[in-house]
Amino acid sequence: MKQTVTVQFTDMAVALAGLVRVCEPPSAALAMFVRKVGPEAAWQGVLTRRGPRAVLAATAARTQNMTVEMLTKRAQDDLILAATSGARLVGPDDQGWPVAAVEAFEGALARGVRGAGPPIALYVRGRSLTDLPQHGVTIVGSRASSAYGQRVAGEMAHELAHREFTVISGAAFGIDTAAHRAALHAVRSADEHGEGGSSTGRPAAPVTLAVLACGIDRAYPEANRALLDEIGRVGTVVTEYPPGTTPARHRFLVRNRLIAAFGAATVVVEAGRRSGTLSTAAAAEQLGRLVMAVPGPVTSAMSVGCHLLLADRFAQLVTGADDVLAALGRLPAKAPAADTVLTPGADPRHPTDGLDLESARVYDAFPTYEACTVDELAAESGLSAQQVLGSLAMLDLHGLAVKEGTIWRRLRPSDTRSK
Amino acid sequence: MKQTVTVQFTDMAVALAGLVRVCEPPSAALAMFVRKVGPEAAWQGVLTRRGPRAVLAATAARTQNMTVEMLTKRAQDDLILAATSGARLVGPDDQGWPVAAVEAFEGALARGVRGAGPPIALYVRGRSLTDLPQHGVTIVGSRASSAYGQRVAGEMAHELAHREFTVISGAAFGIDTAAHRAALHAVRSADEHGEGGSSTGRPAAPVTLAVLACGIDRAYPEANRALLDEIGRVGTVVTEYPPGTTPARHRFLVRNRLIAAFGAATVVVEAGRRSGTLSTAAAAEQLGRLVMAVPGPVTSAMSVGCHLLLADRFAQLVTGADDVLAALGRLPAKAPAADTVLTPGADPRHPTDGLDLESARVYDAFPTYEACTVDELAAESGLSAQQVLGSLAMLDLHGLAVKEGTIWRRLRPSDTRSK
Repeated sequence: MKQTVTVQFTDMAVALAGLVRVCEPPSAALAMFVRKVGPEAAWQGVLTRRGPRAVLAATAARTQNMTVEMLTKRAQDDLILAATSGARLVGPDDQGWPVAAVEAFEGALARGVRGAGPPIALYVRGRSLTDLPQHGVTIVGSRASSAYGQRVAGEMAHELAHREFTVISGAAFGIDTAAHRAALHAVRSADEHGEGGSSTGRPAAPVTLAVLACGIDRAYPEANRALLDEIGRVGTVVTEYPPGTTPARHRFLVRNRLIAAFGAATVVVEAGRRSGTLSTAAAAEQLGRLVMAVPGPVTSAMSVGCHLLLADRFAQLVTGADDVLAALGRLPAKAPAADTVLTPGADPRHPTDGLDLESARVYDAFPTYEACTVDELAAESGLSAQQVLGSLAMLDLHGLAVKEGTIWRRLRPSDTRSK
Repeated sequence: MKQTVTVQFTDMAVALAGLVRVCEPPSAALAMFVRKVGPEAAWQGVLTRRGPRAVLAATAARTQNMTVEMLTKRAQDDLILAATSGARLVGPDDQGWPVAAVEAFEGALARGVRGAGPPIALYVRGRSLTDLPQHGVTIVGSRASSAYGQRVAGEMAHELAHREFTVISGAAFGIDTAAHRAALHAVRSADEHGEGGSSTGRPAAPVTLAVLACGIDRAYPEANRALLDEIGRVGTVVTEYPPGTTPARHRFLVRNRLIAAFGAATVVVEAGRRSGTLSTAAAAEQLGRLVMAVPGPVTSAMSVGCHLLLADRFAQLVTGADDVLAALGRLPAKAPAADTVLTPGADPRHPTDGLDLESARVYDAFPTYEACTVDELAAESGLSAQQVLGSLAMLDLHGLAVKEGTIWRRLRPSDTRSK
């Protein structure tokens, strides 16, 4: 299918495209230069080889033997390629630039974290990146995920999307795909049930965000091309790499810092012992994001990485979307486990629940099928006759014991109800 | 089967049996009184109704309307019943009294923990309680355990028993049974392989210890009678309750504090949201023992309690015996996960592992099937030509790249090996 695209270049767009093209990310030096003098002046500096030494070094490989015309032409070509792919280039001054998400890099750089260079501009397909990281949760995990991991990732993503959080991932096989798909499905369900309404009725934040380690015109993995196209329509696909960039191993590690930056939390659903997914968790921690992990069977190699993160208390244990939101302070936390631990026998189905300890002891002291005297109950429970009498009054009040002449008989709640 | 048993009562034995009989545990008051004046004087105090008010109150229900002769006779009867069941009564002055395990209660009482009364004496079947809690690990979990939980409990118990740790549990269905059985099996395996040798060749510590919430002459659950008999032969069965005591709900909670006290750590393998097992974890924490929990599928109701303990960082995550021993400082810990996190892409099967980052970038910058020039590599990797040349030399050294005239070709490690 051929189509004609008319593209208008602003000087700013060409400058940003040029800057993205001449430097392999992350380059803290170039990003800081851009921040200081603005993209257009920075681009002029690169073109004329004037600027901080670190910037010239970082851009040397891709500018040598290139004239200003050649560099400008290539930047324009990138913009055309992007437009042909339905993408646009978004820079720091543009609407939709994820200011808050990018700010984390500056904090990390200030703390001396290596490799924390912010993106200079982003190629974007689909919706604008609003409300990130505030309303974004990153879900990542192994490509070689188990059925268990895919189920957990899917349920978590569906629930988060349903609550209008953006589900961020990397479009890889396995956990990433399960998360993206489930988020997309949440939109379809909402549309069918008239909850979210039409696409114009939905809030502007993308339901899911895929961050690529290649050009916006590429689909990687190729088998996920249709998924990426759908994300590009309903949600958002984003990359800091210029069009045509091939996915290379080092780019996945670099890309992972963006995946982590876009979410308020990074949830590792499944990860092998040395999974690349752990680099996303490490990046999240360095960027000041919450790191969470889902436990799994200790018999599963795909949960080993999660258990390492949890055992070292590097990550917070979460079992689903509610736990994630509670840890983010967006949901009332579950009843504190301190309570659970301190009243551990409190099985809600047991008749003595809610009773004081002594009354429960007397209740348990009854023989199963016989009535007995107060003294017998005292001997069995180890309480005084006076204590037993007080407890029997309490049990009577709750319909759990009845006096028959001089002896007492225990009642089960069902006995009471059947009366 | 009838048999004649000759039992000789020392005054001390009668005193201990009497004390255990007249008071429902835990009674901190009676225990402290015994510690202060000794069991025989304490028993005289109870018989003559002279002693601290709290002691008289705690023993009133079971001594009222009883003469000294009746109380003495009942104590002797208990000793006879115990002997008939192959058990003996062990007190604080006897060989085999678990001094270190009981000391924890005094610490807890000093910290104001309620219900932390130490046992006054213990009915014991089988081996002496030596090396506890130093060489004991408590393994507990739900009665309604899953196949997963039983497998994990069994493997952990087998491994711990194999390393001559005592596996402590409560003889209940589910996780308890799996733990006891696996420990017993470890002894049988060792005997068959001639590792542990005969029963006299094994160290004195019991391979497994079952703590009951009823009399030593009872089997609860009844279906575990054969298991308890085997534990009584090969390992140890213990209870603080006098013979004939029926298992009552409140006794399980009281018993759980002993289960926790006997182990250096308490490992919760599976527990529902409000499992009674959590009371053992709470007791362990109060007694200054390590609390550990095994994660499981978040889709399993039987792991909810474990996940609560882990999410609140009340318990340390463990995946097996090695983790337990490492947390106890008995094994070198695994390679610290900090490393795992900081070098996350370090898949040992990837050719660039161990290379510096720049060389890895150059390696990844090669097209898959084509050779290319230094300038092409520089442009793709974003490095300077000089940096690329340095990296190519490094790759050449490792057999990962080869120069062919003016171009370079990437080699895979297998290419090198096949040469």
